[in-house]
This record gives sequence, structure tokens and C-alpha cells, in this order.
Amino acid sequence: MTRSAHYVGDRTFVVEDTEPVPPGPGQVRIDVAYTGICGTDLHIAHGAMDHRVRVPAVIGHEMSGRIAEVGPDVEGLRVGEPVTVMPLDWCGECPACRGGNAHICHRLTFVGIDSTGSMQRSWTVPAKIVVPLPEGLPLDHAALIEPTAVAVHDVRRSRLTAGEHAVVIGAGPVGLLIGKVAQTTGAAVTVLELDPHRRAVAAELGLPTVDPAAEDVAGYVQEWTAGAGAEVVFEVSGSAAGVRTATDLLAVRGRLVVVAIHPVPREVDLHRVFWRELELVGVRVYQHDDYVEAIRLVRDGLVPAGRLISRVVPLEDAASAFRALEAGGDVKVLVDCGGVA
Amino acid sequence: MTRSAHYVGDRTFVVEDTEPVPPGPGQVRIDVAYTGICGTDLHIAHGAMDHRVRVPAVIGHEMSGRIAEVGPDVEGLRVGEPVTVMPLDWCGECPACRGGNAHICHRLTFVGIDSTGSMQRSWTVPAKIVVPLPEGLPLDHAALIEPTAVAVHDVRRSRLTAGEHAVVIGAGPVGLLIGKVAQTTGAAVTVLELDPHRRAVAAELGLPTVDPAAEDVAGYVQEWTAGAGAEVVFEVSGSAAGVRTATDLLAVRGRLVVVAIHPVPREVDLHRVFWRELELVGVRVYQHDDYVEAIRLVRDGLVPAGRLISRVVPLEDAASAFRALEAGGDVKVLVDCGGVA
Ligand SMILES: [Zn+2]
Ligand SMILES: [Zn+2]
Ligand SMILES: [Zn+2]
Ligand SMILES: [Zn+2]
Repeated sequence: MTRSAHYVGDRTFVVEDTEPVPPGPGQVRIDVAYTGICGTDLHIAHGAMDHRVRVPAVIGHEMSGRIAEVGPDVEGLRVGEPVTVMPLDWCGECPACRGGNAHICHRLTFVGIDSTGSMQRSWTVPAKIVVPLPEGLPLDHAALIEPTAVAVHDVRRSRLTAGEHAVVIGAGPVGLLIGKVAQTTGAAVTVLELDPHRRAVAAELGLPTVDPAAEDVAGYVQEWTAGAGAEVVFEVSGSAAGVRTATDLLAVRGRLVVVAIHPVPREVDLHRVFWRELELVGVRVYQHDDYVEAIRLVRDGLVPAGRLISRVVPLEDAASAFRALEAGGDVKVLVDCGGVA
Repeated sequence: MTRSAHYVGDRTFVVEDTEPVPPGPGQVRIDVAYTGICGTDLHIAHGAMDHRVRVPAVIGHEMSGRIAEVGPDVEGLRVGEPVTVMPLDWCGECPACRGGNAHICHRLTFVGIDSTGSMQRSWTVPAKIVVPLPEGLPLDHAALIEPTAVAVHDVRRSRLTAGEHAVVIGAGPVGLLIGKVAQTTGAAVTVLELDPHRRAVAAELGLPTVDPAAEDVAGYVQEWTAGAGAEVVFEVSGSAAGVRTATDLLAVRGRLVVVAIHPVPREVDLHRVFWRELELVGVRVYQHDDYVEAIRLVRDGLVPAGRLISRVVPLEDAASAFRALEAGGDVKVLVDCGGVA
């Protein structure tokens, strides 16, 4: 028997014993060690994605574990191997896929949202989404590979380089990861965050912070960059104010990376875009190279995954992980899925 | 004696005989052949830039002529040589200039707006803004080098390449030039334009057009691009609707070049920017390489400058050029400044 946490609607999870699914051709079964919870999972739990998630649903896509069983026609994966997944499934045939951008496939499905996720002890998935991990990488840290790959993708799209200045607007888990990944390029990073607790967490991680409610951010960035402005701004707040601040802070030819998902159109200062030849850059999930780099950064401690994990709860108590994230104060909450002793 | 058309405010021009200005050190005096009139000049004539233009003012910056006199300490320019100007003056010291982006200098001044322009028979300018022209390039065509350089800059910033699809929103003079320059890359181009006369002009120039009021533009582009969307959209309309259409039409990783100047912030569909990893690209004037390419394109007839000139008026009647542009129906109107027989 295995156990699974089922989202049944309206912030409610039911944990049940279930039968493990034997891996079919091209599939593997994974003993799940940890599943991290992200903003999208929280949205789902709040019912905001009930149009997309069919309940009862096992969700979760930030995970680590070990191969438990290998189905027919699977090559290159062996039982016991530590793994994570890149939870994307693409069609291979649309213009995006043919153009080398399968991660933005016109018919992209997201494993753990559009199909069963990892918040269970035993998880059967297509072998093609499995990403092997180096031995010796702690499996709790490995549950942060997926969000780290998001940050790697965002920083790569920004073309940030050593000697440049990056501003990160918003110090939630994604903002913190972007800040740490941005620092690995050799750029200087400042994080803007209204919440004092989040600022304290950022500071502990070695990320300089500014409180935009208390300081004149434009003046600060002017001084910091000797009048040039920031070469890159990552908008991770999702707010209209964040977008406005971003264009104000950017240097000539600066890049605004739109990380947060803005559900409604936002006013953008296109005169400033013209005046300084700014760029806005959209970013969505990650590509395989981002996983390779994320694994390297977490393994080498350049992204301090362990210090970002603020709480680990047992699978039986998965609902408490969501409650903790709602209450605020946590950074990354993991569910111990119990599949790896 | 020479003659100059002076803008004196409120759409009024006074043409007067004036003394030629002898070129000082580092200056040359140019016998002006033609001066083209652009949207910015029209704005000035309407009084919309009276905060910036000190009246009485000689305006004009799209020009051609021949060197009449060379001041002390000028090298590499000789009397009689055909020339145009790149009408920018930068400080050389600000972060933009030091970063290789002098055309977006923090203290950029624009010759013909912030200082005396070319709507006169004899014009004295800093030698450093002079760009020599090949002999044999008709001087009326050469008056279109400056706006062609704008189009070259915009297309270069779009990274448009052969086999891609570009949509140009708006078929005024800048839109038409962008369309023609875009075609030289080997890309397929479609121009969206509401005005039937402008559509006819575009079609005559070999630019396929669509009337967005009569056709389902999104459906058209879907079919044209086999479901992919356009790799590049040039927004030249300056309208809120143009910005919305642009993001709707773009392919995965498509680039929206913000050519028109939007005086107020515009709503931008940042969800679409995320979903398709779109880019917005700001563009402003041009750099030296854009002039080199613009001269080549006009000289080789790849940009049909002669066919874009719809009217030539004498300097004495400069005001009629502005009236004609206001009335609509013209493409490019030149003032014959009378400096070259
Ligand atoms: Zn996630
Ligand atoms: Zn696809
Ligand atoms: Zn102009
Ligand atoms: Zn400068």
C-alpha cells in the first residue's frame, strides 16, 4: 500500500491509503521523499484553479525521491537512483515545439496540475520527465531544484552579467531564489520588499534589501548605480506598483523580467520604454539546461536550499503545510511523503 | 544672403533673408538641397513642443545638401561633397554614452529641435554630425536617409530574420519604411492600416495590407503563419488598440517593437507576455551603423525613396508643406531649400 494526499476542494485534503500504480511502458514508479508547495499549489488549494484541476486530485510538482520500479522500454534509469522531475509534457508538433521552445508548447500540460502530482508516497510518471540527481545531494534540498530552475531560467532570460545591477521586486520564495541565482552571475543584487519578516529572511541569505515604504527607491538605485539605473529588474510582486517601479528604475537598455503572473493587463510606461530603449521579457517555467544549472547551484550550495526550508510536515498533515503558507512567516514548506526512509 | 523659414508659433512660418553663418572651428556650412518634414516637425508646428522649441526657430532635420564651406580643424570633409546629417548631439560622459549607447544619452539634444535646423538654404553645423553620401545618390532621395535609418534601427532591434513574419501596425511614412526595410531581411511582411488611401500606398510599394476594421486580423495572422503567430510586430500606430493587437498576434518568443511614442501609459497584457515568453523592445532614433545601412538601402533602391516623396514645395512656401501633411493624403513632403541648383 501507499498513501496519497487528495485535494478535494475548498482547502481540504484527505489522506488515504491507495494501491501503488505499476509502471507501464515508458514509465517509472518513484518512491517520493519530499514534495514542496509553491504559490500555484496554494492557488489550487484555494479553489482558484478548480476549472483546471479535477478533484479529488493529488497535486505537487516540486519533488525528490528514488526510482522504485522501472517499466518496460525505459532506458537509462535504474532502481534506487535519486531523481526529481521536470513536470512538463509537450506535444512535440506545434510551432513552439518545432521551434525549440517545447516549454511554451501551445498544448503544454503541467504534471501535478493537469495530471496527478507527487504528494504521495509512491508516484508513477513518464520516464521522460525524470531528471537524475547526483548522489550525495540531500533529498530535502533536491525538492527545491524545480523552483531553482525557475529562477535560473529567469536570470538567463535577463542576460544579467557580472558587474551589472539587478533589482528584485518581492522577496517571496521565487524572489529569494532569483536573488541568489542572480548573485552567482557576479552581478550586484538589491531586493525590494515591504514585509519586514521577508526582508529579514532575505538579509539572512545575504541579499541586501530596501523597504520601498520607508526609502526613496529611485534615489537609492540612482546612487547605487552612479546615476545609470539598474540593468535588470525582476518583477516578482505581481502588483501594478511593481511594474511602475520597475520601468522607473531601469538603466538605458535595461531589461524588465516579468516573473510574476499578472492576471489583468497592467499600465506600462511605454514612453519610458522608448526613451531608454528598455526591454520587457516574458518568462515561463524552464528548459532542460535550467535544470542542469539548478542542480549544480543547489549541489554546490550556491543556492542555499537548506536555509530556505522553513518547515517540514508529514504527509498525514499535508493540509497544515498549506495553512502555514497562508499564515505567512514561512519560506519553503516541504511535505515529507515518506517514500524514502 | 541666404533664406530661412522660421517657425514663429501657432502653425505660422515666416521666410526671411538672413546672413549665412560662417563655420567656426569644427563646423561646416552646408548648402541645403532638401528638408523632409516628419511627425515631430508637425508636432512642433502645432505648438505641441513650444516648451522645448524657442521661437522664432528654424526647424528640420531630415536633409540633404553639399558642403559649401569647411571651418578650421575639420578633417575628412571637402567642399562640394554630398552629405546628410545624423542630427544627434550627446555628452560623451553619462552612463549611456560610456556604455556605448550615445544615441540614448541622458543629455541628448536633437539638432533641428533643440538647436537650429535645416529648413534654410545655408546651414552651419558641427562637422561631427555630418554623414557623407555616395555621389550619384539623388539628393531628394537622400533627404529620406534619416527616417530610413529610424526604420533600419527598429528592424535591427527586432532581430527579424529571413523566413519570419512581421506585422506593421500603421502605414504612415515610418510604418511604410519599416515595412520595406523588414522585407529586405527576407521576412514576410503584412501592414495593418485603417485608412484606405494609406493601404493603397502601401500596396503600391509592394506591401501586403489588411484592413483591421474589415478583417479578423487574429484569424488572418493565424492562417498566414500556420498557427504560429507573427515573430515580430512593429507598433507604429501609437494607439492603445495597437498595443493590444500586437500582443495578441505574436508567436511564442515574439518581439513587439514599440516604435510609436505613447504619451500615456498603456495597458499591456502581461499574462500573454508570460504565457508566450514575449518581449517588448523599446527603440529610439538610430546609431551610426543604421545610417550606413540606410544609405545602402536607399542607394540600391531597396527602399524606394523616390516613390515615397509625394510632394516637393519651395522654401518660400514651407508652410504649405505642413498644411498638406495635416490634410492627409501625402506620404513624404520635401521642402526644396534651394541651396543646390
Ligand atoms: Zn510551482
Ligand atoms: Zn507543442
Ligand atoms: Zn523626424
Ligand atoms: Zn551622454
